[in-house]
Amino acid sequence: MKIGIIGGGAIGLLCASYLSEHHDITLFTRRKQQAEEIRALGIERMVRGETIQSAVGADTGVKGIFDLLIVTVKYHHLQDVLGELSGLPHQRILFLQNGMAHLVDLKNWKTAHQLYIGVVEHGAMKVSDRAVNHTGIGVIKWGAFLHEEKGPMSSELSTGDFQMVYTDEWKKVLEEKLLVNVCINPLTALLHVNNGELVSNPAYEHMMTCAFEEAVSILGLPEKDRLWAHVKSICHQTAANQSSMLQDIVKGRQTERKAIIGYLLKKAQGQGMTPPFLTFLNRSLEVLEKKQTKSFE
Amino acid sequence: MKIGIIGGGAIGLLCASYLSEHHDITLFTRRKQQAEEIRALGIERMVRGETIQSAVGADTGVKGIFDLLIVTVKYHHLQDVLGELSGLPHQRILFLQNGMAHLVDLKNWKTAHQLYIGVVEHGAMKVSDRAVNHTGIGVIKWGAFLHEEKGPMSSELSTGDFQMVYTDEWKKVLEEKLLVNVCINPLTALLHVNNGELVSNPAYEHMMTCAFEEAVSILGLPEKDRLWAHVKSICHQTAANQSSMLQDIVKGRQTERKAIIGYLLKKAQGQGMTPPFLTFLNRSLEVLEKKQTKSFE
Repeated sequence: MKIGIIGGGAIGLLCASYLSEHHDITLFTRRKQQAEEIRALGIERMVRGETIQSAVGADTGVKGIFDLLIVTVKYHHLQDVLGELSGLPHQRILFLQNGMAHLVDLKNWKTAHQLYIGVVEHGAMKVSDRAVNHTGIGVIKWGAFLHEEKGPMSSELSTGDFQMVYTDEWKKVLEEKLLVNVCINPLTALLHVNNGELVSNPAYEHMMTCAFEEAVSILGLPEKDRLWAHVKSICHQTAANQSSMLQDIVKGRQTERKAIIGYLLKKAQGQGMTPPFLTFLNRSLEVLEKKQTKSFE
Repeated sequence: MKIGIIGGGAIGLLCASYLSEHHDITLFTRRKQQAEEIRALGIERMVRGETIQSAVGADTGVKGIFDLLIVTVKYHHLQDVLGELSGLPHQRILFLQNGMAHLVDLKNWKTAHQLYIGVVEHGAMKVSDRAVNHTGIGVIKWGAFLHEEKGPMSSELSTGDFQMVYTDEWKKVLEEKLLVNVCINPLTALLHVNNGELVSNPAYEHMMTCAFEEAVSILGLPEKDRLWAHVKSICHQTAANQSSMLQDIVKGRQTERKAIIGYLLKKAQGQGMTPPFLTFLNRSLEVLEKKQTKSFE
């Protein structure tokens, strides 16, 4: 198949590297330099101690017709990408954003494209503009958004450590990932602690229950006990890891605050709820984000 | 009387300016330049729209014998000052620190000096090295620490808008001020909001109740309803103000975190309590303080 991948971050590089084994790939990046480098030297993927080289096409500015387009940019760049996609001929587009805020934007997007939503359960770290470390082997669960047409077969898109799993339950998967994210990311970023500390320090675990209770109630999720056990087990499994939001704060990058906590706050507002702890976390993160770029006001 | 005042901040300048009306004042500053400037040009005090000049002595390094020494430095400079005071002949020393952490240090301090504790209820802003704005006219409540001797009469030390009130209940006064501080300061600093927003935004008010409940329980304070009404009324009265801790964070200065929240956490620990919200606030503030001095780690 002819597959276009939009975004040269960790997930974009990961998808391009694996999918290039069986498909004709074009990776679209924002910066010209990254596209040129990838076109000239290919992508390097580190996984299970090995380094695998792959040759892929690369360009800036999304153009052309593909059997599948995969959008891997962060939520805060999504609006720009939707603008570009609006000008393209009708095609199938898979969105792999974190959080759930993009569902709202996609719902409001007047487009003839056929949209799919995916949830990435891989761990990946961008090492350089053309190298990615596949740190956690998971799957991508995906499904059709607001239509019935299944699109390409998951089997065509899967290869070795990169499996795609089609599911009509993608929204539940997304919600559970959002729940985990909202429990772990903001707190670790604010407290500058590894994921494990949220369950080893009773005070922090108590804070996490506050976020959990509010999020579960906003999302209207059943099976609270199972979900809480799930969140805690993720903390234990990833005890030594720095959450992506903590990494963003430390590195002075924009965080996925709006995609994760912002989405929940908007949803709560729509239901006439005012979740105090999430409101507080959101504001504290906003302050911390601003502190990064200027030390004095 | 011969009065020495240690510390050239807002409270030090305020005390020196008022007390110089009836007493022989020496103000001890850390920086030589500030002492020289004050010696040469005196102190300017702005109050009720007027500017009043006063001539005072000034020096660096505490030396000499006084009828009363007043220590106005922030808690995080107290240890250095205690070291200097240890070398002086026996005298009466009044401590005006915020929070309650200094009580622990003073209790452990092996000294023959006669110690007094005061609670400043004035509002004051340092305008320059030799100018202070008396923004809120209150009183200083004070009493003897661990002894019975009353020291100089309050009437001798009081003048116009600067009243000293002696009370055996100073500890209760200190505790209530600490409670107000721990409710307002950390939250406003974390959220970058004026004091009033803690009572106008229901989510923030909820957070404030969390801090309040934990602090009241650690301090073992009765009359919870009255105290909560008191905290809220302070928020309303000072709605447009930035708390001192918020100002410290914005200006990149060290905050009084340890004197206020650190004291409560230590006290809680001694009672086998682990207050989750105060632990969380303390850690978040620590992170925010660090963010000021370096943008990346």
